[in-house]
Amino acid sequence: MSALPPKSSVVKLPDAWFIACASSTLKKKPLAFTLQGTPLVLFRDASGKPAALLDRCPHRNAPLSMGRVTPGGELQCAYHGWRFDGAGACRAVPGLVTDADVSLKARAAEAYPAEEQDGYVWVYSTAGDKPPEGPYRFPLLDDAKYTTVKREFSVNGTLHATVENTLDVPHTAFLHGGLFRTPEKKNEVEVVVRRHGTFAEAEYLGEPRPTGLAGRLLAPQGGVVTHFDRFLLPSIAQVEYRLGEKSHLITTSAMTPIDDFHTRVWAVVTYRLPLPNFLVRPFLTPVAERIFRQDAVMLKAQTEVIRHFGAERYTSTELDVLGHEVWRLLDQHANHRPPPADVKEHRVKMRT
Amino acid sequence: MSALPPKSSVVKLPDAWFIACASSTLKKKPLAFTLQGTPLVLFRDASGKPAALLDRCPHRNAPLSMGRVTPGGELQCAYHGWRFDGAGACRAVPGLVTDADVSLKARAAEAYPAEEQDGYVWVYSTAGDKPPEGPYRFPLLDDAKYTTVKREFSVNGTLHATVENTLDVPHTAFLHGGLFRTPEKKNEVEVVVRRHGTFAEAEYLGEPRPTGLAGRLLAPQGGVVTHFDRFLLPSIAQVEYRLGEKSHLITTSAMTPIDDFHTRVWAVVTYRLPLPNFLVRPFLTPVAERIFRQDAVMLKAQTEVIRHFGAERYTSTELDVLGHEVWRLLDQHANHRPPPADVKEHRVKMRT
Amino acid sequence: MSALPPKSSVVKLPDAWFIACASSTLKKKPLAFTLQGTPLVLFRDASGKPAALLDRCPHRNAPLSMGRVTPGGELQCAYHGWRFDGAGACRAVPGLVTDADVSLKARAAEAYPAEEQDGYVWVYSTAGDKPPEGPYRFPLLDDAKYTTVKREFSVNGTLHATVENTLDVPHTAFLHGGLFRTPEKKNEVEVVVRRHGTFAEAEYLGEPRPTGLAGRLLAPQGGVVTHFDRFLLPSIAQVEYRLGEKSHLITTSAMTPIDDFHTRVWAVVTYRLPLPNFLVRPFLTPVAERIFRQDAVMLKAQTEVIRHFGAERYTSTELDVLGHEVWRLLDQHANHRPPPADVKEHRVKMRT
Repeated sequence: MSALPPKSSVVKLPDAWFIACASSTLKKKPLAFTLQGTPLVLFRDASGKPAALLDRCPHRNAPLSMGRVTPGGELQCAYHGWRFDGAGACRAVPGLVTDADVSLKARAAEAYPAEEQDGYVWVYSTAGDKPPEGPYRFPLLDDAKYTTVKREFSVNGTLHATVENTLDVPHTAFLHGGLFRTPEKKNEVEVVVRRHGTFAEAEYLGEPRPTGLAGRLLAPQGGVVTHFDRFLLPSIAQVEYRLGEKSHLITTSAMTPIDDFHTRVWAVVTYRLPLPNFLVRPFLTPVAERIFRQDAVMLKAQTEVIRHFGAERYTSTELDVLGHEVWRLLDQHANHRPPPADVKEHRVKMRT
Repeated sequence: MSALPPKSSVVKLPDAWFIACASSTLKKKPLAFTLQGTPLVLFRDASGKPAALLDRCPHRNAPLSMGRVTPGGELQCAYHGWRFDGAGACRAVPGLVTDADVSLKARAAEAYPAEEQDGYVWVYSTAGDKPPEGPYRFPLLDDAKYTTVKREFSVNGTLHATVENTLDVPHTAFLHGGLFRTPEKKNEVEVVVRRHGTFAEAEYLGEPRPTGLAGRLLAPQGGVVTHFDRFLLPSIAQVEYRLGEKSHLITTSAMTPIDDFHTRVWAVVTYRLPLPNFLVRPFLTPVAERIFRQDAVMLKAQTEVIRHFGAERYTSTELDVLGHEVWRLLDQHANHRPPPADVKEHRVKMRT
Repeated sequence: MSALPPKSSVVKLPDAWFIACASSTLKKKPLAFTLQGTPLVLFRDASGKPAALLDRCPHRNAPLSMGRVTPGGELQCAYHGWRFDGAGACRAVPGLVTDADVSLKARAAEAYPAEEQDGYVWVYSTAGDKPPEGPYRFPLLDDAKYTTVKREFSVNGTLHATVENTLDVPHTAFLHGGLFRTPEKKNEVEVVVRRHGTFAEAEYLGEPRPTGLAGRLLAPQGGVVTHFDRFLLPSIAQVEYRLGEKSHLITTSAMTPIDDFHTRVWAVVTYRLPLPNFLVRPFLTPVAERIFRQDAVMLKAQTEVIRHFGAERYTSTELDVLGHEVWRLLDQHANHRPPPADVKEHRVKMRT
């Protein structure tokens, strides 16, 4: 099949919301944060609302993140004490006697829209006015029947490679062999791949119920397995499982491209299971973390090879159901192409 | 006000004397030293006079600083034993039987003029003949009424940023808040800024005498405060204070650009105070070193931001009295422009 | 004399055999190995024959050296489990249901010819078919009258600089002063330099027999000293000594250019001496290793200077008998120029 992506999977995504940090980590001190290679500084204004400025004082280019937040909620540079509000406007230059005919615009720090939602501080990747739409909303967070666990990870990988890894089924049997899929591939499943305008999904048909005790516990009344993998622009990777009536698990990973080759993963696992939580979590967490560590090691090694050779040189088969869709969507967003209006669908068979 | 400097403050200064090391550190062994990115080797010839050569043997490019100085005062390469005198001429090639018709010029190591003055070894930044003028002379070193203290520091900063920091008044109240200026700015002073052909100075008028005990000790008979900040080409930053009749302090910092983003500061503090030395030094030295450390941390952070973005992007106000003058002078020297003959003067008000 | 090489001694040598590792270090696990900057992976197929592939899985560019060798002698990628044979052909893609109309060529890993000979695994520097000629054969390995000692070293130096250092006589008296040549140069020898099509040699005439006990032990019946230094394409540096009838020593260093500035040296010392081995080795080995360490330090320093300045800038004398020949041969091979048919010879006098 075709080699993909053609040159390099590195993209810069404008006009997109990304998670900068958990709400709880942004307190009274300014916080440095890099988004797509651009150093930003986060702080809270007097009302507690988060703000994000370019982390470079317009005066002498000191990093504003070395400064402090005044009691009035202004960010003050540590070098000469210039003060900025959450919109980036310069509010004071210590030592100035008069400030009459001076345009203050040159003194402003570039401001990036920032919002707080679902327990995260989100930053918009294009400086300027408040964008028309808010950040992505994680599903089912407010549903009392669901439990939510949040985790964060750092990965040495491009956004594309990290998303593809998260949504890739074939490697799980191999790299994570024994953890949740077995290397002996006995089951043949059908995958429906759908390309939408701003997202893509793979639906797995015919996946067998887990055998033995696990199957009886998770789906005591039997029933069908439903499994979707999804990529949603700009950077959401989602895996959804249903097992019978009572088991439902969605893992949503919001990815933040720190720079071309580093991605921060904000994973939100929301589930409803027929088992009590105290039984589930001791098993779920260590397995998930071991899987993550194995993926992180592999993504780092893959990234080093790609950087050494200058770019990817991929060969794909029909099993690589979402990698190319992810690439197409990222490229479409990065280059301001309008999302196609039609939905395309194709089917693939896979042994899992 | 205008953004400055327009692109990057990195300059290469030809035809200029810089301090390479303290006289006492150049002994019998050759010493490696980098000037504006060029590796040099310093050594003393048979008469003890310092010499500076390009730190690359013309034969096989081994660093001459790995070699030794012969009893005859020649620098001998450690690889094949070629020997060079202080002018860079090759004096011996071990193993050669005859050496008749060979032009020795290709075998010479490039030599840079070197002088010893005021306890320092100075090197000229352009290879070749002895330049018409000698190095800068520090003021009042021979005056018995003055005490001199020498210090040296390394800074992660361009020459321009380091000089501007040294001569900048507004940041002292802020970055060094509490150390020698207070953040509450009560005093309004007038600053006279003068542009000369090869130097610039800022004279501060109306600075108040220190209050309380310090003022009574330093200027027992009262009197006027005189304060000058100066930049002298190629790289001298000078701060001069007079307090009444008896207190006079000049801090002269000769800067050596090691490479584009590293500057070595040779500070010479010369003073006459109405207090005995044993009272002054225990206070002066720790305060000066704390100020230096704070500035060094800030310059390093500023430099990292500038390098990350590729160049400076400064916004200035009238308080930035000397930064632009320093830039103009460095640029003038770097580009061999003749110094303007006239003196320009303007006045600025500042709260300190 | 002329500066050489004109720009930079860095070459890439196609169509050449280089030692990748000692046979004994390539066992059941795949082994990463870099040749002229290209990451390769070595492994043994089912028959034990060594194979070398580009260390990048054609699927998602994971390093194949992270994988494992299957019991069937295939190299299996650790990410998705693709399997490759020694020729680089893809033998399995786990999960694929049908594999009918897919050209498998895009799934192949680039394969480099590999051979095992003289206790080493050799790899050919151009991917593709088995080359017409095999690797270099070390002399006298099978001669029962000779003893062979193998050593390996890593050097921070270009292939050219490392070869020239190995074959350079004048530096030994100086850098290794006292170890086997003395700095007082009393002997005048004649050197015959011969340029052949694919090798060059320097024959030293009139070298004195070692004096004292060493001379009587090594050449008890007296006789003439014969000394050749040779460079053979692509990367063999050879030093041969004969002392009378009974003493004969050849040090052959097969160099592997790991990348532009790192060279691995595989030294094979083969000798016949009138002394019993238990007397010789305790002296030979430590001296050889001390010489190597001194050379390694010097090559590293030389390389750093060359890299800092961007390229070599050499001045040579008649004493640099082989450096230019080595350069000419490397350049000839790198640029596919036919070897000259004639032999050129010139003579030089040297004090050693």
